Amino acid sequence: MQYPKPVTRLIESYMKLPGIGEKTATRLAFFTINMDQEDVGEFSQALQEVQTKLHYCHICGNITDQEPCEICANEQRDQTQILVVEQPKDIMALENMHSYNGLYHVLGGVLSPVNGIGPDDLRIKQLVERLQHDDLITEVIVATNATSEGEATAMYLAKLIKPAQIKVTRLAHGLAVGADIEYADQMTLQRAVDGRQQI
Amino acid sequence: MQYPKPVTRLIESYMKLPGIGEKTATRLAFFTINMDQEDVGEFSQALQEVQTKLHYCHICGNITDQEPCEICANEQRDQTQILVVEQPKDIMALENMHSYNGLYHVLGGVLSPVNGIGPDDLRIKQLVERLQHDDLITEVIVATNATSEGEATAMYLAKLIKPAQIKVTRLAHGLAVGADIEYADQMTLQRAVDGRQQI
Repeated sequence: MQYPKPVTRLIESYMKLPGIGEKTATRLAFFTINMDQEDVGEFSQALQEVQTKLHYCHICGNITDQEPCEICANEQRDQTQILVVEQPKDIMALENMHSYNGLYHVLGGVLSPVNGIGPDDLRIKQLVERLQHDDLITEVIVATNATSEGEATAMYLAKLIKPAQIKVTRLAHGLAVGADIEYADQMTLQRAVDGRQQI
Repeated sequence: MQYPKPVTRLIESYMKLPGIGEKTATRLAFFTINMDQEDVGEFSQALQEVQTKLHYCHICGNITDQEPCEICANEQRDQTQILVVEQPKDIMALENMHSYNGLYHVLGGVLSPVNGIGPDDLRIKQLVERLQHDDLITEVIVATNATSEGEATAMYLAKLIKPAQIKVTRLAHGLAVGADIEYADQMTLQRAVDGRQQI
């Protein structure tokens, strides 16, 4: 015996989400059946809207429902800095600091020869074009993740951009705020020592 | 700064699912943005269909897209036994045994005075009516869960049905197949000893 078709289809859809197996998908599907009809309608519509109403900003590559995105369109922001991130999600984390007021550029990933991702697969060409056409920019802050691939991408970008007399910086690495030295990994400790600052 | 509205809405919808908090909902929403358009369309449609196409079988209370449900409509099944379960999901587990061929009845829960759930909140009246109108039924197998509330519900049903000269049975409790006695809890061991059978 099988579940009725609509249930099976919903289970299959839930299973396409990351980290959701058959058991969880079944639990979610049965929960959905008993959910408020309005909530399910909104859920269904929200799914369609993220596909129809969202696109990538043609300037910075951020996910947006405007063109250009809210940040690129905001002339109040500091037009001299571009902060380069891997993914649109990173922008939200940085915006939640409420202290950076410059522009962004989304690479869409990092250089990864192992996975066959080269410079042409990332939005590096678009970054270079932005720098060429926009004389205001004086600093590019590379905020790729602190992984070996993120580091390599930062180095690649630095080599590419520095000849244009634009300052290229990288986010500081070191101990996380509140972290115990006792439990810090060797790499992080090494970075913290190397990047020590006078007090 | 906020995510674009369509993203926020989808995150909020995901958060209404059980066990999904803001972080997971955000991860799922961004995953959805990058999903195959066809898959998202199917997902969206499946959500609506479980609300529009499904209903509870008027006979047994199982979730179905037919009327009556596949099991109640199947005259090949043994019309003398009714197996009483808490939830429609339980039917699927029992059907997967491929050995029970009787009918089912879904209670929709268990008696729980603490949560204010009494006999009128469950499909007990419907079960009694089925037994009154259907002379073929000779046995009611109570398959509520092995919790104190499931036990109490089983006892309640037994008291209610026995006067009608219908046999009321309960699923056996004991050690799960493959379980270590060493790790079995006391209640289970007690049930296993009480229910011991001659070999």
